[in-house]
Amino acid sequence: MTNSIIDLLAGKIVPTHPLLVRIASYYFELKGKRLRPAVILLLSHALQVAQGSALAATQVQLAGIIEMIHTASLVHDDVLDEATTRRDLPSANAKFGNKLSVMAGDFLLARASINLARLGNHEVTELMACALGDLIEGEFMQITGSTDFDYYLRKTYLKTASLLAHGCRCAAILGGASREMVDAATVYGRNIGLAFQIVDDLLDFTGSSEELGKPAAVDLSLGLATAPVLYAREEFPELDAMIKRKFSTPGDVGKARELVAKSKGIYRTTQLAAQYSQLAMDALRNFAPSPTHAALFALPQVLLTRSR
Amino acid sequence: MTNSIIDLLAGKIVPTHPLLVRIASYYFELKGKRLRPAVILLLSHALQVAQGSALAATQVQLAGIIEMIHTASLVHDDVLDEATTRRDLPSANAKFGNKLSVMAGDFLLARASINLARLGNHEVTELMACALGDLIEGEFMQITGSTDFDYYLRKTYLKTASLLAHGCRCAAILGGASREMVDAATVYGRNIGLAFQIVDDLLDFTGSSEELGKPAAVDLSLGLATAPVLYAREEFPELDAMIKRKFSTPGDVGKARELVAKSKGIYRTTQLAAQYSQLAMDALRNFAPSPTHAALFALPQVLLTRSR
Repeated sequence: MTNSIIDLLAGKIVPTHPLLVRIASYYFELKGKRLRPAVILLLSHALQVAQGSALAATQVQLAGIIEMIHTASLVHDDVLDEATTRRDLPSANAKFGNKLSVMAGDFLLARASINLARLGNHEVTELMACALGDLIEGEFMQITGSTDFDYYLRKTYLKTASLLAHGCRCAAILGGASREMVDAATVYGRNIGLAFQIVDDLLDFTGSSEELGKPAAVDLSLGLATAPVLYAREEFPELDAMIKRKFSTPGDVGKARELVAKSKGIYRTTQLAAQYSQLAMDALRNFAPSPTHAALFALPQVLLTRSR
Repeated sequence: MTNSIIDLLAGKIVPTHPLLVRIASYYFELKGKRLRPAVILLLSHALQVAQGSALAATQVQLAGIIEMIHTASLVHDDVLDEATTRRDLPSANAKFGNKLSVMAGDFLLARASINLARLGNHEVTELMACALGDLIEGEFMQITGSTDFDYYLRKTYLKTASLLAHGCRCAAILGGASREMVDAATVYGRNIGLAFQIVDDLLDFTGSSEELGKPAAVDLSLGLATAPVLYAREEFPELDAMIKRKFSTPGDVGKARELVAKSKGIYRTTQLAAQYSQLAMDALRNFAPSPTHAALFALPQVLLTRSR
């Protein structure tokens, strides 16, 4: 017994309960966009091509780690938001209950930590741990919420863009890129993350439930004020009281949607996302031309025009 | 803006929301036993004395990281168990709500990961990440529960002893101990962890609410069958049905307590804890004599006779 435990620790064998793996894997099987691993892999490939080297195994592992961290945050967010569906299917909490879902999220974070440690790069481990901290702080800001536009942008960075910024930075570090390219990768990740999330916030106003695979106007129903309604408030000051009471009075959600539709909120939000997309594209200027570079360059535009 | 984000990433500045820090710190301020950091620091000191060297800064940091991981698990456990009190005070979920508590737990894990990465030792990062995985798997086993004694022991190892086993192993590694001493440290941590948790399970039957600072018989109320009742089942087969229905029929908890009191369950559980305490003490045989070695040697006995 004494020996076996040392073998276990030394051999880093991690036996795992099958049901825990099943719940933790549940969101991986959903047909998602897989934006994060796609960005990390494309960026890694473009950087390696520029250096005349092959994609590193650690870069591929990093893409998986980032998707695990993201998935863990989805599982916990759905518990916190009491979400019932995710991509047309029951949410993890609806299917397995809150307890098992909280644990499955914890388990994914633990697995991501193990895989991260195995990459064997201290700078990367630390940067990704910071990204995880940002993600949680972003979710926290969302819940404790202020109604200020700067607060919204900071929350958006922490909750969505930080993981992509840190992830792209780490992909470049793992590939042995120059410091200049490491910084360029970071700027790309950050800005594509911001553009992506702002478009997501936009689709909550413009998309239909069928297109989104989740209820439309879910943000307003959750009491969240995102860019479209924050911009619309400048034209329709009556939105201010609704935003502050988190759209909690019956009729608030419908009325807010009407006012946003009448306002320049949608247009201005599209412009904001386009600005961040442009910054992402600008960050690629020193990359050597290659098919993956072209894909990276096209990606912000694709994200801007998506319908889900 | 672009530059500041790179400064932020490169400088690893992690600005943090004050309320999040306050919730995450809440359990640190409770008057707990602080068993884990105490064991890690005593063990580290004893190992360093034996080598004629000073306590390493990384060993001290490790003790803090382990307490953060443990605290995160308490916060999440209290949410999962819907606990109302912790050490005579309202539980975090009772005081701040489930949402903020889940996030505060996540935040503590993220902070622990950052600090762990900063120790700059891959083996340690990976071992501690495995310990975190074990902790979650142990909690999971507890919830999905079987009523088998081996299952109970494995759950106890994963939920409590693994963190101490891995922690003691990492403390020895960080101190540059020989492989033999690294293994001895692991055996000490594992066995003191098992003894500690088994005594905890015992106190749930023998302690009063006032002594424990939490309701007595809370395990039975939560549907958990621990060593005393599993042993008692061998003498009183009628306990089997109660264990299997998780003491859910009114009167089950009182009846089970009565039967355990009449049985040899308390005695046999004490013996079991004493065996693990002995294994912990045996693991110290190759340590050089020192005052901290004496304290480490006395600790299992102290834990066996505690009343809370």
